[in-house]
Amino acid sequence: MTSTHPIDFYFDFSSPYGYLAATRINAIGAKYERRVKWRPILLGPAFKASGNSPLVSQPIKGDYSIRDVKRTARFMGVPFKQPANFPIGTQNAARAFYWLDDRDPLIAHMFAMTCLATYFAEGIDISGADTVADIAARLGANRNEVSAAIADPAVKERLKQEVDASLAAGVFGSPYIIVDGEPFWGSDRLDQVQAWLETGGF
Amino acid sequence: MTSTHPIDFYFDFSSPYGYLAATRINAIGAKYERRVKWRPILLGPAFKASGNSPLVSQPIKGDYSIRDVKRTARFMGVPFKQPANFPIGTQNAARAFYWLDDRDPLIAHMFAMTCLATYFAEGIDISGADTVADIAARLGANRNEVSAAIADPAVKERLKQEVDASLAAGVFGSPYIIVDGEPFWGSDRLDQVQAWLETGGF
Repeated sequence: MTSTHPIDFYFDFSSPYGYLAATRINAIGAKYERRVKWRPILLGPAFKASGNSPLVSQPIKGDYSIRDVKRTARFMGVPFKQPANFPIGTQNAARAFYWLDDRDPLIAHMFAMTCLATYFAEGIDISGADTVADIAARLGANRNEVSAAIADPAVKERLKQEVDASLAAGVFGSPYIIVDGEPFWGSDRLDQVQAWLETGGF
Repeated sequence: MTSTHPIDFYFDFSSPYGYLAATRINAIGAKYERRVKWRPILLGPAFKASGNSPLVSQPIKGDYSIRDVKRTARFMGVPFKQPANFPIGTQNAARAFYWLDDRDPLIAHMFAMTCLATYFAEGIDISGADTVADIAARLGANRNEVSAAIADPAVKERLKQEVDASLAAGVFGSPYIIVDGEPFWGSDRLDQVQAWLETGGF
């Protein structure tokens, strides 16, 4: 089955499983000639709607999840370092992403992947506006414009609309991938995402 | 790496992902010449310890989980029918299992697989003591003895000890598989279980 509708890839910049999926999703899209629309969200409102909380703060399950993320990264062959500050607020990175995406989607994409790798492969906190602006600037964006955008009420509102739209689409975790209306939650569903694209649904 | 230590396979008879893993775990054990110790538990105490609740009762995530189980069963090629009564109490099935396991491990294993398939492939409620005794009797056990065992305080205590032991081992969900001390949660970790057995740890 061929389709021109993009694959929606929802993630939070502070989600380790979102990072793991991010390292694979474009290759999967490319294999089936499908564009992947990266859609950073904030898990806080999603957790509120679904009554969830960050895995790491849950008793017993939290310790397991840290072990599982590290092991899954090794299993996938993806560099991973548990950040000392975890989880972090990601509104600055998400705002910068949408501002960039409206101007230069390729820089926005490289920015997203670099933020995730900086945080999860190097363990460097990316919550600060300055850190986010530095990353964007190194990729060719105008640092002052990015800094101004992060503080701009219109950009804040843009992110809020994206988060609201994700909740309306049923997104409750990260990564959350929608292929032609079919939702897949978790980096461990990438094999099903690929099979869905291969077969047009099973 | 070879080891004679069994693979611990913890599951609740009311867990659909436990059922999916149950259809595969013995074949994985056999491939690496490892015995699989089936250990039915009750998720209620595990959820209490980890602050969790049944997936299906969680807002938004619950609806997703029903869809995901059906799709994952199709993906794995496993017969599945969402039971009308779900979730159910599974203490009768678990008590019968341990009583059988002390007397005839092969019948106990066949009993466990039959209970799971009756519930998740046919959609038939297996919570009742009579239903459980019927299944055991069809596999060759003495029906009256099984019925008596289910009501026996000593067997109830045996199950309680098994559940306590699972909590002490860190089990917080179903399926939960421990290979040489390494814990794996979820039917979607079977590929990692297999890689762990293949490599002796990665």
